[in-house]
Amino acid sequence: MKDFGIGLLGFGTVGAGVVEGLKRNGDLIASRLGVRPVLRWIADLDTTRDRGVEIAPARLTSNAEAVIDDPAVDIVIELIGGKGAALALTRRALQKGKPVVTANKALLAEHGAELFGLAAKHNTDIYFGASVGGGIPIIRVLREGLVANQIVSIHGILNGTCNYILTRMEQEGLAFDDVLKEAQDKGYAEANPALDVDGFDTAHKAVILAWLAYGAFIPTSQVLIEGIRHLAAADIRYAADLGYRVKLLAVVKRHADAVEVRVHPALVPRTHMLASVHGVFNAMMVHGDMTGPTLLYGRGAGREPTASTVIGDVGDLMKNLLTGSARRFQSTGGEASVRLLDRGEARTRHYLRLSLRDRPGTLARITAVLGEHGMSIASVLQQEGAGEYVPVVIVTHHCLERECQAALQEIAGLDVVGGEPVRIRIEE
Amino acid sequence: MKDFGIGLLGFGTVGAGVVEGLKRNGDLIASRLGVRPVLRWIADLDTTRDRGVEIAPARLTSNAEAVIDDPAVDIVIELIGGKGAALALTRRALQKGKPVVTANKALLAEHGAELFGLAAKHNTDIYFGASVGGGIPIIRVLREGLVANQIVSIHGILNGTCNYILTRMEQEGLAFDDVLKEAQDKGYAEANPALDVDGFDTAHKAVILAWLAYGAFIPTSQVLIEGIRHLAAADIRYAADLGYRVKLLAVVKRHADAVEVRVHPALVPRTHMLASVHGVFNAMMVHGDMTGPTLLYGRGAGREPTASTVIGDVGDLMKNLLTGSARRFQSTGGEASVRLLDRGEARTRHYLRLSLRDRPGTLARITAVLGEHGMSIASVLQQEGAGEYVPVVIVTHHCLERECQAALQEIAGLDVVGGEPVRIRIEE
Repeated sequence: MKDFGIGLLGFGTVGAGVVEGLKRNGDLIASRLGVRPVLRWIADLDTTRDRGVEIAPARLTSNAEAVIDDPAVDIVIELIGGKGAALALTRRALQKGKPVVTANKALLAEHGAELFGLAAKHNTDIYFGASVGGGIPIIRVLREGLVANQIVSIHGILNGTCNYILTRMEQEGLAFDDVLKEAQDKGYAEANPALDVDGFDTAHKAVILAWLAYGAFIPTSQVLIEGIRHLAAADIRYAADLGYRVKLLAVVKRHADAVEVRVHPALVPRTHMLASVHGVFNAMMVHGDMTGPTLLYGRGAGREPTASTVIGDVGDLMKNLLTGSARRFQSTGGEASVRLLDRGEARTRHYLRLSLRDRPGTLARITAVLGEHGMSIASVLQQEGAGEYVPVVIVTHHCLERECQAALQEIAGLDVVGGEPVRIRIEE
Repeated sequence: MKDFGIGLLGFGTVGAGVVEGLKRNGDLIASRLGVRPVLRWIADLDTTRDRGVEIAPARLTSNAEAVIDDPAVDIVIELIGGKGAALALTRRALQKGKPVVTANKALLAEHGAELFGLAAKHNTDIYFGASVGGGIPIIRVLREGLVANQIVSIHGILNGTCNYILTRMEQEGLAFDDVLKEAQDKGYAEANPALDVDGFDTAHKAVILAWLAYGAFIPTSQVLIEGIRHLAAADIRYAADLGYRVKLLAVVKRHADAVEVRVHPALVPRTHMLASVHGVFNAMMVHGDMTGPTLLYGRGAGREPTASTVIGDVGDLMKNLLTGSARRFQSTGGEASVRLLDRGEARTRHYLRLSLRDRPGTLARITAVLGEHGMSIASVLQQEGAGEYVPVVIVTHHCLERECQAALQEIAGLDVVGGEPVRIRIEE
């Protein structure tokens, strides 16, 4: 049986999972594939810390370049993260014609066009299954399984930290800050949680999914990104009363002449499969024109789930090397260049929570403003309040993002309105 | 761009979907894969019926052998169904070294060992993504995505007809016979529904999944198969009261020295993702030792979803032919030969509904019999009744199948018990 040499760059959580997985299931993988992955080197700046997996110390080095350059290394796994060393080392491997497996969503979202071009130039591959969805095979399914489909839309819960926080806020009625602290204590959230809770991690993943579906890299900087920091326990409670759960969604959608990519909290009907995704789990609902709705659900992060997908990619690359079939998949949606839909042209329903002065005619003024901006009301929830202002929750029919923004700007300036209006989009 | 010739055998519902899909999305597929599928022939005994898709009449023939033999046909799609002509024609194609795409679960479950052996002998492939789960890429995910995992278990809702019937029974409180008739009127159930409602279709699919996971074909005749015909509206209602939904499940599980495969209705906790699968949808929950739980959900049948998966397989085979990499995947779980777990050794909780004579000491006698057979009670639901007998619902803790069967046999013979005890297994 043919062996293929693996060079692992980055010996963190997922790296240790890869080592563990190859050790525990290496024989099984070899018997399934007829080829065997052999770990030749592990490169990390820290060569002393115990990662809880047994390795031969002589195989651990701080010289990542030497690992890439070793002729005994056929496949490079990049699990360093970030866009510094990871970028330089990925370039180096590709330039040597060595295929790369990466879980680095930020790297691909920002430098994907360059790196995939480099892979093509050197007739080799980048596989990136673990960059979106951890242990969930969404990349493989989009690239290969749904190849016959026009991708109508993708709705994804792509960040386990955010979903954990939102689940706890809903189930316990807690405030964002309290749950964030709890998540940090449990290790579900980073000390600096901005990448997760402000939506950037989800946006990187959305950019990768949009690229697979439609063949163009949308610059992350142009994507509408709204995180979950501003969500109040009250809104999650009102949403529940209305039959919805609040989820941080990535939305990727095909329009006639543009692609829509946005990341924001959204009200999802409680009966929808995505509303049943609790805690740190991730899920993606893909609508293909032939398949209809297809959902994938599982662990979107973590040592072994992510390592499972990394090793799955290694399996593909070993087969590609064995049969001389690099570039098996073009890794592109294949469609002509697509333009990003203007943010203002997104069309959704909206949940609005306004703090209104409790006197006659107030609601009529609000509905008049909404109507002037093309927004019609589906339902209103107004409860008796004790103070000068009462909370009023309005659910609208579909309207354009720019109509809603203009209406909210005008409403915020009315003397009957206290505080900032709250708006959460609704996806159905 | 290189063309590959496709010969389609069987111009029924899915066949028409393949024709439609290749027509509508052929350019997209070609731009994604860099190769183009070209439909050379369609073979069907009926060459006149309108299938709602436009084809050149000269491409339609009743001579399937000639289609296979045509040197311009590189890939054969078998959508005839059944085990007669489909078997002979699949053999013929493989013997000529031509790869075959099939959606024929019965054929694979019964003749898979022979056909995969034949494919290996002639250095070609059988792809069978559409044999389980229609538009859901479960076969691809098990074969490639989860290659690094020991498969701990698979729980699947694999038959849309049964799930539609169970959903309607639950939501409307209807009896099985009434819903079956409605399903037949709507075209969701066959005139002869036995293959679906008696569990055989699900069992064929379970056998294929078990083979992918563990590398051995379990004879369908040895699988525990129980359908949904005997389910009463009352049981579905009681299950709901207890927090469960009733689903027809395929259960495939790894034990230390055996594989468990069974098909039967099961109570599933309402909070479990599988309980949210309504109507004709299918879903599979796969537990890998690295990924943890992973769910795939979508349309498990129908013209376009199934055709989507068939065309996806064609995509793989075109790439295999292009790069001379047939036999890319061994299509086996790769483990040593596995034995089927004895039916009596299956371990589950149980829902029991007994009709008991309404007099003192009756329940004590029942619990004594259960206890003698190693079964302990988790909860009892007894309501006041008007007649001589009252229904009593018992939920047990885990016990062995043979313990439960022995207990039920003894209970059925007691003079305080009226009618046959009802038993539904619980999966959690």
